Amino acid sequence: MNERDLFLICDVPGFTPQIGRLVSMMNYVRHTTLSAVAGLGVDDLDYLYDLQSNSIGALLSHIAATEVGYQAATFYARDLNEEERQEWGADLDLGERARSEIRGQEMEYYLSRLQQVRAKTLAELARREDQWLEEHTSIGSGQRVNNYFKWFHVFGHELNHRGQIRWLRRHATKMS
Amino acid sequence: MNERDLFLICDVPGFTPQIGRLVSMMNYVRHTTLSAVAGLGVDDLDYLYDLQSNSIGALLSHIAATEVGYQAATFYARDLNEEERQEWGADLDLGERARSEIRGQEMEYYLSRLQQVRAKTLAELARREDQWLEEHTSIGSGQRVNNYFKWFHVFGHELNHRGQIRWLRRHATKMS
Repeated sequence: MNERDLFLICDVPGFTPQIGRLVSMMNYVRHTTLSAVAGLGVDDLDYLYDLQSNSIGALLSHIAATEVGYQAATFYARDLNEEERQEWGADLDLGERARSEIRGQEMEYYLSRLQQVRAKTLAELARREDQWLEEHTSIGSGQRVNNYFKWFHVFGHELNHRGQIRWLRRHATKMS
Repeated sequence: MNERDLFLICDVPGFTPQIGRLVSMMNYVRHTTLSAVAGLGVDDLDYLYDLQSNSIGALLSHIAATEVGYQAATFYARDLNEEERQEWGADLDLGERARSEIRGQEMEYYLSRLQQVRAKTLAELARREDQWLEEHTSIGSGQRVNNYFKWFHVFGHELNHRGQIRWLRRHATKMS
Protein backbone atom coordinates (compact mmCIF):
# COMPACT_ATOMS: atom_id res chain seq x y z
CA MET A 1 0.00 0.00 0.00
CA ASN A 2 1.14 3.48 -0.85
CA GLU A 3 1.38 5.31 2.47
CA ARG A 4 0.78 8.56 0.69
CA ASP A 5 -2.71 7.43 -0.31
CA LEU A 6 -3.63 6.04 3.09
CA PHE A 7 -6.35 8.63 3.62
CA LEU A 8 -7.91 8.43 0.17
CA ILE A 9 -10.78 6.09 -0.61
CA CYS A 10 -10.40 6.03 -4.35
CA ASP A 11 -9.30 4.09 -7.41
CA VAL A 12 -6.56 1.56 -6.70
CA PRO A 13 -4.43 0.33 -9.61
CA GLY A 14 -5.28 -3.26 -10.51
CA PHE A 15 -8.84 -3.13 -9.27
CA THR A 16 -12.13 -1.97 -10.78
CA PRO A 17 -13.47 1.32 -9.31
CA GLN A 18 -15.82 0.01 -6.62
CA ILE A 19 -13.54 -2.84 -5.67
CA GLY A 20 -10.67 -0.34 -5.45
CA ARG A 21 -12.63 1.74 -2.96
CA LEU A 22 -13.35 -1.35 -0.92
CA VAL A 23 -9.66 -2.26 -1.03
CA SER A 24 -8.77 1.30 0.08
CA MET A 25 -10.93 0.83 3.14
CA MET A 26 -9.53 -2.63 3.88
CA ASN A 27 -5.98 -1.31 3.56
CA TYR A 28 -6.59 1.56 5.92
CA VAL A 29 -8.22 -0.66 8.53
CA ARG A 30 -5.34 -3.11 8.36
CA HIS A 31 -2.85 -0.26 8.75
CA THR A 32 -4.57 0.81 11.96
CA THR A 33 -4.77 -2.75 13.29
CA LEU A 34 -1.05 -3.15 12.80
CA SER A 35 -0.43 0.21 14.49
CA ALA A 36 -2.56 -0.90 17.43
CA VAL A 37 -0.31 -3.90 18.12
CA ALA A 38 3.06 -2.44 17.12
CA GLY A 39 5.84 -3.36 19.51
CA LEU A 40 3.97 -5.98 21.54
CA GLY A 41 5.94 -9.01 22.74
CA VAL A 42 4.84 -12.58 23.40
CA ASP A 43 3.68 -11.83 26.95
CA ASP A 44 1.58 -8.93 25.72
CA LEU A 45 0.08 -10.97 22.90
CA ASP A 46 -0.83 -13.79 25.31
CA TYR A 47 -2.11 -11.61 28.12
CA LEU A 48 -5.60 -12.48 29.33
CA TYR A 49 -7.32 -9.59 31.02
CA ASP A 50 -9.77 -11.91 32.75
CA LEU A 51 -11.37 -15.31 32.32
CA GLN A 52 -13.79 -14.10 29.67
CA SER A 53 -11.27 -12.18 27.60
CA ASN A 54 -9.45 -13.09 24.44
CA SER A 55 -5.78 -12.30 24.13
CA ILE A 56 -4.61 -9.77 21.58
CA GLY A 57 -2.86 -12.62 19.75
CA ALA A 58 -6.10 -14.56 19.55
CA LEU A 59 -7.94 -11.48 18.28
CA LEU A 60 -5.33 -11.01 15.53
CA SER A 61 -5.73 -14.64 14.51
CA HIS A 62 -9.49 -14.26 14.65
CA ILE A 63 -9.28 -11.33 12.24
CA ALA A 64 -7.31 -13.48 9.77
CA ALA A 65 -9.58 -16.49 10.26
CA THR A 66 -12.70 -14.47 9.59
CA GLU A 67 -11.18 -13.30 6.32
CA VAL A 68 -10.50 -16.94 5.38
CA GLY A 69 -14.14 -17.73 6.05
CA TYR A 70 -15.35 -14.94 3.80
CA GLN A 71 -12.90 -15.96 1.08
CA ALA A 72 -14.51 -19.39 1.04
CA ALA A 73 -18.01 -17.92 1.07
CA THR A 74 -17.58 -15.25 -1.58
CA PHE A 75 -14.86 -16.57 -3.90
CA TYR A 76 -15.75 -20.27 -3.83
CA ALA A 77 -19.37 -20.33 -2.59
CA ARG A 78 -18.65 -22.85 0.11
CA ASP A 79 -18.01 -23.19 3.85
CA LEU A 80 -14.54 -23.83 5.22
CA ASN A 81 -13.28 -27.28 4.27
CA GLU A 82 -11.89 -29.77 6.76
CA GLU A 83 -8.29 -28.65 6.29
CA GLU A 84 -9.22 -25.01 6.81
CA ARG A 85 -11.28 -25.89 9.90
CA GLN A 86 -8.25 -27.70 11.30
CA GLU A 87 -6.03 -24.70 10.71
CA TRP A 88 -8.41 -21.93 11.71
CA GLY A 89 -11.00 -23.48 14.04
CA ALA A 90 -9.64 -22.17 17.34
CA ASP A 91 -9.02 -18.75 15.82
CA LEU A 92 -12.55 -18.58 14.49
CA ASP A 93 -14.26 -19.79 17.63
CA LEU A 94 -12.18 -17.87 20.18
CA GLY A 95 -13.24 -18.57 23.79
CA GLU A 96 -11.83 -21.42 25.85
CA ARG A 97 -10.11 -23.27 23.04
CA ALA A 98 -8.37 -20.15 21.77
CA ARG A 99 -7.28 -19.22 25.30
CA SER A 100 -5.46 -22.55 25.64
CA GLU A 101 -4.22 -23.09 22.08
CA ILE A 102 -3.22 -19.65 20.83
CA ARG A 103 -0.23 -18.84 23.00
CA GLY A 104 3.53 -18.48 22.94
CA GLN A 105 3.83 -17.02 19.45
CA GLU A 106 5.87 -14.00 18.49
CA MET A 107 4.24 -11.11 16.66
CA GLU A 108 5.76 -12.35 13.42
CA TYR A 109 3.53 -15.43 13.53
CA TYR A 110 0.37 -13.33 13.61
CA LEU A 111 1.59 -10.81 11.04
CA SER A 112 2.50 -13.59 8.66
CA ARG A 113 -0.94 -15.18 8.92
CA LEU A 114 -2.66 -11.86 8.37
CA GLN A 115 -0.43 -11.07 5.44
CA GLN A 116 -0.82 -14.42 3.67
CA VAL A 117 -4.59 -14.32 3.95
CA ARG A 118 -4.77 -10.75 2.75
CA ALA A 119 -2.54 -11.45 -0.27
CA LYS A 120 -4.96 -14.12 -1.39
CA THR A 121 -7.94 -11.82 -0.89
CA LEU A 122 -6.36 -9.09 -3.01
CA ALA A 123 -5.40 -11.55 -5.75
CA GLU A 124 -8.97 -12.83 -5.93
CA LEU A 125 -10.51 -9.35 -5.82
CA ALA A 126 -8.19 -8.22 -8.62
CA ARG A 127 -9.71 -10.90 -10.87
CA ARG A 128 -13.25 -9.64 -10.38
CA GLU A 129 -15.38 -6.77 -11.70
CA ASP A 130 -17.53 -4.29 -9.81
CA GLN A 131 -20.66 -6.17 -10.80
CA TRP A 132 -19.49 -9.08 -8.66
CA LEU A 133 -19.99 -6.89 -5.59
CA GLU A 134 -23.71 -6.85 -6.31
CA GLU A 135 -24.08 -10.64 -6.37
CA HIS A 136 -25.98 -11.83 -3.37
CA THR A 137 -27.01 -14.86 -1.41
CA SER A 138 -29.96 -15.14 0.97
CA ILE A 139 -29.90 -15.92 4.64
CA GLY A 140 -32.48 -17.72 6.78
CA SER A 141 -34.74 -14.75 7.27
CA GLY A 142 -34.97 -14.24 3.51
CA GLN A 143 -32.71 -11.21 3.65
CA ARG A 144 -30.26 -10.78 0.82
CA VAL A 145 -26.56 -10.29 1.50
CA ASN A 146 -24.37 -9.06 -1.34
CA ASN A 147 -20.62 -9.50 -1.77
CA TYR A 148 -20.00 -5.83 -1.08
CA PHE A 149 -21.68 -6.25 2.30
CA LYS A 150 -19.67 -9.38 3.06
CA TRP A 151 -16.34 -7.63 2.51
CA PHE A 152 -17.54 -4.50 4.27
CA HIS A 153 -18.39 -6.82 7.15
CA VAL A 154 -14.86 -8.28 7.11
CA PHE A 155 -13.22 -4.91 7.65
CA GLY A 156 -15.97 -3.77 10.03
CA HIS A 157 -15.38 -6.88 12.10
CA GLU A 158 -11.67 -6.06 12.12
CA LEU A 159 -12.40 -2.52 13.31
CA ASN A 160 -14.63 -3.83 16.04
CA HIS A 161 -11.85 -6.07 17.34
CA ARG A 162 -9.27 -3.35 16.88
CA GLY A 163 -11.34 -1.32 19.33
CA GLN A 164 -11.07 -4.20 21.77
CA ILE A 165 -7.34 -4.55 21.14
CA ARG A 166 -6.80 -0.87 21.90
CA TRP A 167 -8.83 -1.18 25.08
CA LEU A 168 -6.90 -4.28 26.16
CA ARG A 169 -3.58 -2.64 25.43
CA ARG A 170 -4.54 0.43 27.45
CA HIS A 171 -5.82 -1.58 30.40
CA ALA A 172 -3.32 -4.40 30.59
CA THR A 173 -0.83 -3.11 33.12
CA LYS A 174 1.86 -5.48 31.91
CA MET A 175 1.93 -3.72 28.58
CA SER A 176 3.72 -0.58 27.64
CA MET B 1 -33.76 2.41 6.64
CA ASN B 2 -35.41 -0.57 4.98
CA GLU B 3 -34.61 -3.52 7.25
CA ARG B 4 -34.87 -5.82 4.28
CA ASP B 5 -31.87 -4.17 2.66
CA LEU B 6 -29.76 -4.11 5.79
CA PHE B 7 -27.20 -6.51 4.33
CA LEU B 8 -26.89 -4.89 0.92
CA ILE B 9 -24.30 -2.23 0.16
CA CYS B 10 -25.93 -0.79 -2.92
CA ASP B 11 -27.87 2.08 -4.44
CA VAL B 12 -30.02 3.95 -1.94
CA PRO B 13 -32.92 6.06 -3.26
CA GLY B 14 -32.19 9.76 -2.99
CA PHE B 15 -28.41 9.41 -3.17
CA THR B 16 -25.93 9.13 -6.02
CA PRO B 17 -24.40 5.62 -6.43
CA GLN B 18 -21.20 5.98 -4.43
CA ILE B 19 -22.81 8.10 -1.75
CA GLY B 20 -25.60 5.52 -1.55
CA ARG B 21 -23.07 2.79 -0.84
CA LEU B 22 -21.49 4.92 1.83
CA VAL B 23 -24.93 5.55 3.35
CA SER B 24 -25.63 1.77 3.24
CA MET B 25 -22.53 1.19 5.34
CA MET B 26 -23.35 4.03 7.75
CA ASN B 27 -26.89 2.68 8.17
CA TYR B 28 -25.70 -0.82 8.93
CA VAL B 29 -23.14 0.36 11.46
CA ARG B 30 -25.73 2.49 13.22
CA HIS B 31 -28.13 -0.48 13.32
CA THR B 32 -25.49 -2.56 15.09
CA THR B 33 -24.61 0.25 17.52
CA LEU B 34 -28.25 0.55 18.51
CA SER B 35 -28.48 -3.24 18.91
CA ALA B 36 -25.40 -3.17 21.13
CA VAL B 37 -27.08 -0.84 23.61
CA ALA B 38 -30.68 -2.02 23.36
CA GLY B 39 -32.40 -2.30 26.71
CA LEU B 40 -29.80 -0.50 28.81
CA GLY B 41 -31.03 1.70 31.65
CA VAL B 42 -29.53 4.84 33.18
CA ASP B 43 -27.30 2.88 35.58
CA ASP B 44 -25.92 0.81 32.70
CA LEU B 45 -25.34 3.87 30.53
CA ASP B 46 -23.49 5.62 33.38
CA TYR B 47 -21.46 2.63 34.53
CA LEU B 48 -17.72 3.22 34.73
CA TYR B 49 -15.74 0.04 34.50
CA ASP B 50 -12.69 1.69 36.03
CA LEU B 51 -11.11 5.10 36.41
CA GLN B 52 -9.81 5.15 32.85
CA SER B 53 -13.01 3.98 31.18
CA ASN B 54 -15.72 5.89 29.44
CA SER B 55 -19.33 5.04 30.11
CA ILE B 56 -21.47 3.59 27.35
CA GLY B 57 -23.54 6.77 27.45
CA ALA B 58 -20.42 8.88 26.92
CA LEU B 59 -19.35 6.65 24.03
CA LEU B 60 -22.76 7.07 22.37
CA SER B 61 -22.49 10.84 22.73
CA HIS B 62 -18.94 10.69 21.43
CA ILE B 63 -20.14 8.89 18.31
CA ALA B 64 -22.69 11.66 17.67
CA ALA B 65 -20.19 14.42 18.48
CA THR B 66 -17.63 13.02 16.06
CA GLU B 67 -20.24 13.08 13.32
CA VAL B 68 -20.95 16.75 14.12
CA GLY B 69 -17.24 17.47 13.76
CA TYR B 70 -17.08 15.82 10.34
CA GLN B 71 -20.24 17.62 9.22
CA ALA B 72 -18.49 20.91 9.94
CA ALA B 73 -15.30 19.79 8.22
CA THR B 74 -16.78 18.29 5.08
CA PHE B 75 -20.03 20.19 4.50
CA TYR B 76 -18.92 23.64 5.65
CA ALA B 77 -15.10 23.47 5.52
CA ARG B 78 -14.69 24.74 9.06
CA ASP B 79 -14.00 23.60 12.60
CA LEU B 80 -16.74 23.44 15.22
CA ASN B 81 -18.00 26.90 16.13
CA GLU B 82 -18.30 28.16 19.70
CA GLU B 83 -21.91 27.05 20.08
CA GLU B 84 -21.10 23.56 18.85
CA ARG B 85 -18.07 23.35 21.15
CA GLN B 86 -20.32 24.27 24.05
CA GLU B 87 -22.81 21.57 23.18
CA TRP B 88 -20.41 18.80 22.17
CA GLY B 89 -17.09 19.52 23.88
CA ALA B 90 -17.33 16.98 26.70
CA ASP B 91 -18.67 14.33 24.30
CA LEU B 92 -15.82 14.94 21.88
CA ASP B 93 -13.07 14.98 24.47
CA LEU B 94 -14.27 12.08 26.65
CA GLY B 95 -12.01 11.46 29.67
CA GLU B 96 -12.46 13.20 32.99
CA ARG B 97 -14.87 15.87 31.87
CA ALA B 98 -17.16 13.36 30.18
CA ARG B 99 -17.04 11.11 33.24
CA SER B 100 -18.40 13.89 35.40
CA GLU B 101 -20.76 15.65 32.98
CA ILE B 102 -22.34 12.89 30.92
CA ARG B 103 -24.48 11.13 33.51
CA GLY B 104 -28.04 10.54 34.58
CA GLN B 105 -29.61 10.51 31.13
CA GLU B 106 -32.06 7.94 29.84
CA MET B 107 -31.34 6.07 26.62
CA GLU B 108 -33.79 8.34 24.82
CA TYR B 109 -31.43 11.27 25.32
CA TYR B 110 -28.59 9.54 23.52
CA LEU B 111 -30.78 8.11 20.77
CA SER B 112 -32.26 11.50 20.09
CA ARG B 113 -28.84 13.12 19.75
CA LEU B 114 -27.63 10.37 17.42
CA GLN B 115 -30.79 10.62 15.35
CA GLN B 116 -30.78 14.39 14.99
CA VAL B 117 -27.17 14.46 13.91
CA ARG B 118 -27.64 11.63 11.44
CA ALA B 119 -30.72 13.25 9.88
CA LYS B 120 -28.65 16.32 9.10
CA THR B 121 -25.83 14.21 7.65
CA LEU B 122 -28.21 12.39 5.33
CA ALA B 123 -29.88 15.62 4.23
CA GLU B 124 -26.50 17.11 3.35
CA LEU B 125 -25.25 13.96 1.59
CA ALA B 126 -28.46 13.82 -0.46
CA ARG B 127 -27.63 17.25 -1.89
CA ARG B 128 -24.21 16.13 -3.15
CA GLU B 129 -22.87 14.14 -6.10
CA ASP B 130 -20.37 11.27 -6.13
CA GLN B 131 -17.64 13.60 -7.34
CA TRP B 132 -17.82 15.40 -3.99
CA LEU B 133 -16.45 12.24 -2.34
CA GLU B 134 -13.21 12.75 -4.24
CA GLU B 135 -12.63 16.29 -2.99
CA HIS B 136 -9.75 16.39 -0.61
CA THR B 137 -7.90 18.52 1.88
CA SER B 138 -4.31 18.09 3.03
CA ILE B 139 -3.06 17.41 6.50
CA GLY B 140 0.18 18.47 8.13
CA SER B 141 2.27 15.69 6.68
CA GLY B 142 1.18 16.62 3.17
CA GLN B 143 -1.09 13.62 2.89
CA ARG B 144 -4.38 14.11 1.14
CA VAL B 145 -7.66 13.15 2.81
CA ASN B 146 -10.77 12.96 0.66
CA ASN B 147 -14.40 13.27 1.72
CA TYR B 148 -14.99 9.56 1.14
CA PHE B 149 -12.25 8.80 3.63
CA LYS B 150 -13.65 11.26 6.16
CA TRP B 151 -17.08 9.62 6.15
CA PHE B 152 -15.58 6.16 6.07
CA HIS B 153 -13.65 7.27 9.13
CA VAL B 154 -16.86 8.38 10.85
CA PHE B 155 -18.45 4.95 10.59
CA GLY B 156 -15.15 3.19 11.29
CA HIS B 157 -14.78 5.24 14.44
CA GLU B 158 -18.31 4.23 15.41
CA LEU B 159 -17.46 0.55 14.85
CA ASN B 160 -14.35 0.88 16.95
CA HIS B 161 -16.36 2.27 19.86
CA ARG B 162 -19.14 -0.25 19.30
CA GLY B 163 -16.49 -2.91 19.94
CA GLN B 164 -15.71 -1.20 23.22
CA ILE B 165 -19.40 -0.88 24.08
CA ARG B 166 -19.93 -4.60 23.53
CA TRP B 167 -16.90 -5.38 25.70
CA LEU B 168 -18.14 -3.07 28.45
CA ARG B 169 -21.62 -4.53 28.33
CA ARG B 170 -20.24 -8.06 28.60
CA HIS B 171 -17.88 -7.24 31.45
CA ALA B 172 -19.97 -4.88 33.50
CA THR B 173 -21.56 -7.20 36.02
CA LYS B 174 -24.33 -4.76 36.84
CA MET B 175 -25.68 -5.14 33.33
CA SER B 176 -27.98 -7.81 31.99
